[in-house]
Amino acid sequence: MHFAQPLALRSGAQLRDYTLVYETYGALNAARSNAVLVCHALNASHHVAGTYEGQDKSEGWWDNLVGPGKPLDTNRFFVIGVNNPGSCFGSTGPMQTNPDTGLPYGADFPVVTVEDWVDAQARLLDALGIAQLAAALGGSLGGMQALSWSLRYPERLRHCIAVATAPNLSAQNIAFNEVARRAIVTDPEFFEGHFYAHDTLPRRGLRVARMIGHITYLSDDAMEAKFGREMRSTGLAYSTQAIEFEIESYLRHQGDKFSEYFDANTYLLITRALDYFDPAREFGGDLTAAFAAAKASFLLVSFTTDWRFAPQRSREIVKALVDHKRDVSYAEIDAPHGHDAFLLDDPRYHSVLRAYFDNIAKEVS
Amino acid sequence: MHFAQPLALRSGAQLRDYTLVYETYGALNAARSNAVLVCHALNASHHVAGTYEGQDKSEGWWDNLVGPGKPLDTNRFFVIGVNNPGSCFGSTGPMQTNPDTGLPYGADFPVVTVEDWVDAQARLLDALGIAQLAAALGGSLGGMQALSWSLRYPERLRHCIAVATAPNLSAQNIAFNEVARRAIVTDPEFFEGHFYAHDTLPRRGLRVARMIGHITYLSDDAMEAKFGREMRSTGLAYSTQAIEFEIESYLRHQGDKFSEYFDANTYLLITRALDYFDPAREFGGDLTAAFAAAKASFLLVSFTTDWRFAPQRSREIVKALVDHKRDVSYAEIDAPHGHDAFLLDDPRYHSVLRAYFDNIAKEVS
Repeated sequence: MHFAQPLALRSGAQLRDYTLVYETYGALNAARSNAVLVCHALNASHHVAGTYEGQDKSEGWWDNLVGPGKPLDTNRFFVIGVNNPGSCFGSTGPMQTNPDTGLPYGADFPVVTVEDWVDAQARLLDALGIAQLAAALGGSLGGMQALSWSLRYPERLRHCIAVATAPNLSAQNIAFNEVARRAIVTDPEFFEGHFYAHDTLPRRGLRVARMIGHITYLSDDAMEAKFGREMRSTGLAYSTQAIEFEIESYLRHQGDKFSEYFDANTYLLITRALDYFDPAREFGGDLTAAFAAAKASFLLVSFTTDWRFAPQRSREIVKALVDHKRDVSYAEIDAPHGHDAFLLDDPRYHSVLRAYFDNIAKEVS
Repeated sequence: MHFAQPLALRSGAQLRDYTLVYETYGALNAARSNAVLVCHALNASHHVAGTYEGQDKSEGWWDNLVGPGKPLDTNRFFVIGVNNPGSCFGSTGPMQTNPDTGLPYGADFPVVTVEDWVDAQARLLDALGIAQLAAALGGSLGGMQALSWSLRYPERLRHCIAVATAPNLSAQNIAFNEVARRAIVTDPEFFEGHFYAHDTLPRRGLRVARMIGHITYLSDDAMEAKFGREMRSTGLAYSTQAIEFEIESYLRHQGDKFSEYFDANTYLLITRALDYFDPAREFGGDLTAAFAAAKASFLLVSFTTDWRFAPQRSREIVKALVDHKRDVSYAEIDAPHGHDAFLLDDPRYHSVLRAYFDNIAKEVS
């Protein structure tokens, strides 16, 4: 969907003449009351569920959760996935043409925030004739968008479902983002963010960034269970560069794959949006004060082995909501997979979401 | 000290015609029974304690622990620090001339292991006329050397003191090492490890490697307490590359400093020695079987917030020693600083070491 009216960004810049790519699943009911917005995290997109005809392995990134008969049941809900501006899967972003120059935006794409994304999503809903969402749902950075919806558009949101998320990044979270960004911007093929013009990609930097990311997505235990000290061959190669351990092979493979499809400028923008997200900031760090505006009902979910956004971070949000006597449910799932758990189909996790959506379905039918 | 006789390495290669730089503190007693070897970790050296005349800020890396009247009291003990081969502080390593080619070893320096270092240290002790150590002491990778001493030279070691260490690296530990190595070897200025000939340094890779390292040395809590979300200025710059948060500034500074003094090939070698260390490997993963050879008394120390080498890893070693009814003391120190705690002067930690060394002193006097 094309938007001719400029989008004012938190930075003071604006995005003019932009496009959002989106997908929908299921049907909007007559009352227009069954819409659920699914917000994506770092490297995902509008393609939440289903497969594209004739394309093997094209499952949406949350296909185990969203679809007919699934916990977020598209027989009952009208589900919307939007690619956020600044991303690299079709919506206006650094790879697209800057109307001011006729060249790709590259590093000149304005810095976007979680709040900007929520504003862009709200405009898409306007265009679709959806005045109020039954729910906004997201995990990780997607959860931050769901939280932001409850604060920016309290009248337009009945339920906020935020999974494996945090009210802001810790110093350690920022540190990991910063190392990944340094790896990218110091790659000589980054060309100050204008590598498109040089017909190259900062693959080395992206590989390292992705490898770091992967370590933080998996729990120490899950990594130990999956790889441990398993070696590729029985004898040692006594080499610093050969692949000796299976974990090395896995990480290099993840890095290689990622560096071929993900845009480096998008990586910088999205990690920065994570760093900046901090609804309590304008309330002097008081998260309770920040959530005074919220009117939705909330479901928060965290995973015991998630060390990126540990359960404690979700409990901070629960505390702020309870301070306002908001309607809030909280599930802390004992799952071994670390942060990645939010994308997996752990039965206890999915049954919590199914039950919650079943209750919402009763309201909308 | 120069060694003309080749050192056979675990890899099958050998190191011929090599030099070890070492320092000693205190005096060897008449019985030659009061020698304590201090083993260094990744980026440290033979310069354990004291300051160099006329050089400000030249304190040894463990100066808070080692010296007259300090927990490891050089009025009572003869303390030895050795720079391990493969390191970059004076002992034979990648920056030194390869006698076979007349050029710097660079990437051709043979892969060295913890066991090789221990063998090299043992030869130095031979030359110094020390048949048996009162103790071998080390933290982190240094602790692995102390453990290896107890297995390779059981008759030559009375006490093994291993702090903040592990019986081997976990998959996550290896993963962090591998990302750091990839950052270095994919830096175009690495030149396959022969950057000396190009009169350059792979600074970009080293910076990223060091930043990753620093994150793992600090606890999440310590980083939060020290930096949190503190910003450099009151307003946001809305930039992906500007320094916004103090933690970014700190990490970049650490990376910059390190990249100017530390050798990239040494970084590869030392992280690989960490990966390879695994005394249980030749016993089918049975750590108890691996420690059958040990005869020393042991002190193990771990720190509650160390997520690099967590207390659980030290307990595995304690368990293996208890299985053999070895004399073993174990202190789990409740300290906030993460892995770095082993270098700090936490009073409870230092009082444990002081008491332990006091007891050893009674044996040797």
